[in-house]
Amino acid sequence: MAFVEHIRERLGPGPPGEVWAGDDAAVLPSPGGPVLLTADTLVEGVHFDLSLSGVDDLGWKALAVSVSDIAAMGGRPLHALVTVTVPRGRGGDLEQLYDGLEAAARAFACPVVGGDLTSGPHLSVTVAVMGTAPKPVLRSQAKPDDALLVTGPLGGGAAGLRLLRGGAVTFDPADLRQPEARAALAHRRPEPRVAEGDAARRAGASAMIDLSDGLALDLRRLADASGVGVVVDQVPLGPAASLDEALTGGDDYELLFAVPDARRAHQRFEEAGLSPPFVIGRCTNDPGERRLGAGPLPEGGWEHTW
Amino acid sequence: MAFVEHIRERLGPGPPGEVWAGDDAAVLPSPGGPVLLTADTLVEGVHFDLSLSGVDDLGWKALAVSVSDIAAMGGRPLHALVTVTVPRGRGGDLEQLYDGLEAAARAFACPVVGGDLTSGPHLSVTVAVMGTAPKPVLRSQAKPDDALLVTGPLGGGAAGLRLLRGGAVTFDPADLRQPEARAALAHRRPEPRVAEGDAARRAGASAMIDLSDGLALDLRRLADASGVGVVVDQVPLGPAASLDEALTGGDDYELLFAVPDARRAHQRFEEAGLSPPFVIGRCTNDPGERRLGAGPLPEGGWEHTW
Repeated sequence: MAFVEHIRERLGPGPPGEVWAGDDAAVLPSPGGPVLLTADTLVEGVHFDLSLSGVDDLGWKALAVSVSDIAAMGGRPLHALVTVTVPRGRGGDLEQLYDGLEAAARAFACPVVGGDLTSGPHLSVTVAVMGTAPKPVLRSQAKPDDALLVTGPLGGGAAGLRLLRGGAVTFDPADLRQPEARAALAHRRPEPRVAEGDAARRAGASAMIDLSDGLALDLRRLADASGVGVVVDQVPLGPAASLDEALTGGDDYELLFAVPDARRAHQRFEEAGLSPPFVIGRCTNDPGERRLGAGPLPEGGWEHTW
Repeated sequence: MAFVEHIRERLGPGPPGEVWAGDDAAVLPSPGGPVLLTADTLVEGVHFDLSLSGVDDLGWKALAVSVSDIAAMGGRPLHALVTVTVPRGRGGDLEQLYDGLEAAARAFACPVVGGDLTSGPHLSVTVAVMGTAPKPVLRSQAKPDDALLVTGPLGGGAAGLRLLRGGAVTFDPADLRQPEARAALAHRRPEPRVAEGDAARRAGASAMIDLSDGLALDLRRLADASGVGVVVDQVPLGPAASLDEALTGGDDYELLFAVPDARRAHQRFEEAGLSPPFVIGRCTNDPGERRLGAGPLPEGGWEHTW
């Protein structure tokens, strides 16, 4: 992670009025309103295992994770670029990959308008998304006494991965009445919370971040960037998920946001026809405070090592 | 290549007024003028060999090839996103990689505003660039009798790669009086022709493409997209380059453009303080014609196989 921080510092925060590295997406001024830019790479053997997901699921997820970064700014996605590296002899994977990309592009109203296809030793997909927001929500403006909310229960993605890895699948992935099947779906086909991010922005969210690296780590990032303390009282658990998976499993694409008035957030979500967000805690004026109930917020989350 | 064409057809040309897959960059309307989007991936062992170039050269080149796609639309680059996959234990490469990226970002006025860093089995760099042009030049609007011009001599990149691969380097890469050293530099640190693309656009270029896959292949693409024939009379050779390298070697980042009035192009280049472009031939009204001197334009160029 030190490298990420170091590179971020090298790139710099950008000139006044712009946000470069360091938030979910870059924010750039333009005559039509702020432009949001983000890109993520999924690598075979690191981010996905094709014995546990289809290639079409991978296509869906590659677009979903970048759209989630736009959602975390309170923005809406506009267009995507997709670059794919595919090993020789596996060109047939591309058809299914684009099936999933197209399904996601339709679902998130974010068409794929270009990119690159190249051969290479391993399958890898990079998606860059351009989006926009009237007033992007950064992760750095949370204030003491703001309420902390999440847009949905957590840990489902990590639980799904655990269940799929567990060898013989003892549930029917097609029967979504089963929590195990819903967890598997959360891992394979996460849903970025674009409408929820928009509602949070309209409710006056002071800071927002997506939970792709897990609540514990992403909440620390929001608190660090904002210079506030955080106290978590409760964590809503996703289907089949343990508390540990909800806190540090990562692979969740719910949004975490801080807002001065939680009731107003509930109203905005209701007006938009969305499931109500969950209040999980609040911001405090002790910038070093990182608390879960009576104890410390756990360390850990999804991080790359070099 | 069939896959690339097939995927391009799947993605579709976009709604009227937009260009999606199929040109050097996507063209999207926006209140501040057309937005250009492009992305390219460079993979170790496929696009680069770190025994022949430095990691900093790779950083430079990764940005340069995407900026070249913007130049080929007559546009100027605005911002870049960089995603890097780096093997465990090679995190130290990142420092040098970003040295090259930063040098290129300064040289091309295209700051890196975000992206992603991930671990993975092979070093791979994807650069997405957003740019703009008042009136982007597509590759599809060349007309019979238009002159065909290139912005500089060709084949230098391929010659440089051949010389560097030749084992014991018998030239001094730092002494740019030597054509071999200039060829090596063309391979390691190509210069996208942003100012030249802008001048060609102002001169009324009807079609333009960059020559990253070689003159023979990229000229065919321009002719196919425009529905014109093409006749090439002469090919200016880059430093240390053979005719074959100039035609099919690829890895050139000069621009090829069609223009009704070649003299006007020369004037615009001169006004902009640029080296004069080279007239290499002309477009004809026989859409099947692909001629080099008295013979056929050769097949071949840089293409991926799956």
